[in-house]
Amino acid sequence: MAGNAHQNQKNAGRIIISVDAMGGDAGPAVVVAGIAMSADKNPDIGFILHGPEDELKALVAKKRVLDGRVEFRDARDVVTMHDKPSQVMRNGKGTSMWSALDSVKQGEAAGAVSCGNTGALMALSMLRLRKLPGVNRPAIAILWPSLNPQGFNVMLDVGADVRADAQDLLQYALMGTSYVRNSMDIARPRVGLLNVGTEEHKGNAELKEAHGLIASYAEDASFDFVGFVEGSDIPGDVADVIVTDGFTGNVAIKTGEGTASLMRTALRDAFSYSILSKFAALLAMTSLKRLSKRLDPRRVNGGVFLGLNGTVVKSHGGADATGVSAAVKLAFRLAQQGFAEKLAARVASSVALTQDDVAQTSDTAADKATTKKDL
Amino acid sequence: MAGNAHQNQKNAGRIIISVDAMGGDAGPAVVVAGIAMSADKNPDIGFILHGPEDELKALVAKKRVLDGRVEFRDARDVVTMHDKPSQVMRNGKGTSMWSALDSVKQGEAAGAVSCGNTGALMALSMLRLRKLPGVNRPAIAILWPSLNPQGFNVMLDVGADVRADAQDLLQYALMGTSYVRNSMDIARPRVGLLNVGTEEHKGNAELKEAHGLIASYAEDASFDFVGFVEGSDIPGDVADVIVTDGFTGNVAIKTGEGTASLMRTALRDAFSYSILSKFAALLAMTSLKRLSKRLDPRRVNGGVFLGLNGTVVKSHGGADATGVSAAVKLAFRLAQQGFAEKLAARVASSVALTQDDVAQTSDTAADKATTKKDL
Repeated sequence: MAGNAHQNQKNAGRIIISVDAMGGDAGPAVVVAGIAMSADKNPDIGFILHGPEDELKALVAKKRVLDGRVEFRDARDVVTMHDKPSQVMRNGKGTSMWSALDSVKQGEAAGAVSCGNTGALMALSMLRLRKLPGVNRPAIAILWPSLNPQGFNVMLDVGADVRADAQDLLQYALMGTSYVRNSMDIARPRVGLLNVGTEEHKGNAELKEAHGLIASYAEDASFDFVGFVEGSDIPGDVADVIVTDGFTGNVAIKTGEGTASLMRTALRDAFSYSILSKFAALLAMTSLKRLSKRLDPRRVNGGVFLGLNGTVVKSHGGADATGVSAAVKLAFRLAQQGFAEKLAARVASSVALTQDDVAQTSDTAADKATTKKDL
Repeated sequence: MAGNAHQNQKNAGRIIISVDAMGGDAGPAVVVAGIAMSADKNPDIGFILHGPEDELKALVAKKRVLDGRVEFRDARDVVTMHDKPSQVMRNGKGTSMWSALDSVKQGEAAGAVSCGNTGALMALSMLRLRKLPGVNRPAIAILWPSLNPQGFNVMLDVGADVRADAQDLLQYALMGTSYVRNSMDIARPRVGLLNVGTEEHKGNAELKEAHGLIASYAEDASFDFVGFVEGSDIPGDVADVIVTDGFTGNVAIKTGEGTASLMRTALRDAFSYSILSKFAALLAMTSLKRLSKRLDPRRVNGGVFLGLNGTVVKSHGGADATGVSAAVKLAFRLAQQGFAEKLAARVASSVALTQDDVAQTSDTAADKATTKKDL
């Protein structure tokens, strides 16, 4: 295809992100608007766009900033929000989601972004990209607005799997710290394990086992383990990485989102109560906008799938162009940092740690600590 | 004791609430200030106060409104926030918490309120008051600000037990609807089962079993089962009762509290950013106060223990006088409604339902539905 060759040339030196144009609530126009925003801000980014080629070409043609920066992969089927992951694994080959992941598998793109069905995306990602050796359950990690100096915590798993045993929770701690090192400037992240209280006797047997396991790896893997944390610490400042199972994590983020949305409604109601309060709202506009920007969920849109051979970012299904652009930016930044390779090395070294626990001397431990610092 | 006899006379006709004066973060002065607020607003309430009698008498003497409305029970030991429930069960006999529950057990008080250690309070409540026949795991239910017409949802369990099987979740649904009928004016509450998605294939096996079980009881027990709900529905308006296990529920409420607190901090920051924004804040003061009142966690302070022979309300450990007063008001209202007896009848009828599932004819079901309407 001469067109593609031409585009490849123009995209030379750019980091290519594979984007599933379908499956979001608002359709492909919003996805194209989102990548156009990214392209406008970032000259080093290029795209492979997956979906019905004629429709996508027409949308892309309207955005001058995308000229020469988008390749297309025609895919006629769409994974809907109601499709079961098991069905998609069997019959998903013609979908834009499958195609988007294939570009990462083939090495054409440095990461994939999709607004589609989370369960299906995780199932297809495991099928096409495969889990990293040593990872039993991949996880979805999100950034969460917090009182930390960096303004965010990382929480995982928020819904890849409803179960997690102690070994899985240890892997989440290791993958989460690696993610924090590569997405924020924190050399020695603080890890907390989510529980119903901070005392060591709280929680179930699985959590107590995970507590011991994570504590025993902290020194070697260069993180600080702050022990058990509570739900109130998720937006707090005691930990940079919050580790939990996918059921609890999913309920927690949705509860937080719901609470924030309730408060926004209440704030709007409070300011539209009377003519005087409407006038006050006008004067307070700048302050309210500042607040709204700080807590804007679109700014941190994007759950990262950790534990796979390749980077996959799940954008919120209801994301608008700003949200899609934020998810693309996250995929770009992780690609730029060589995150997928660093994470694989981190997981491999933790598998080695597990196997070498006894044989290892303090000298080699010190060596490993040095080389692992930026993993 | 002549003094007590005298006071009993003065309190004749009043509903007596048993209050543990110790164990809160702020000490007994705040508890006494809280019951004084309640006494001031409500002429029909009297108290039995548990703790070091000399100290409490001195505090009560300063509040004229409490004159003749407080009996004392001297208790020298205090359950601290760090005591393990198992230790308290063995050695807690001399504590104010034990004493406060004993007043309910002896029938001297219609309900107990404590700001102390939740785990210890639940363990002692089970030991002293005993579980209702047919209840395996008691639950803690709280009110949660929501978009519902009544302004609140009820969620349970929020931390009595970290586990719950399908039968427990069914009991929570029955106890929660009974609580809603008696604390709000809702004849036919909507019940939702907390999960990671609303589709029926989502979640673990336990939840799927509970889904079927709760659905099968809805008609007979006069509630609407809306099926699975998500974390975002806790502050939403799709259900009046949110049913979940104590681990998930505890993480959810604390995440919600943490998010609300983060937003309050961000709101304050936004309005103190510049001189202009401080001026805007002054003008917006009335609106902000309206917002703050609507979302004030102290207004809904009080987790109710459900599934015991008697009413126990757990106030937040950090509650101020307003918070203590809200918890006392809740205990009073439930006592006034005869809630403990209604709940016991509700649970007994559900045990009967379980046993009669087959034998029952539609006629008797209709009868039961009538008599159960206000349980």
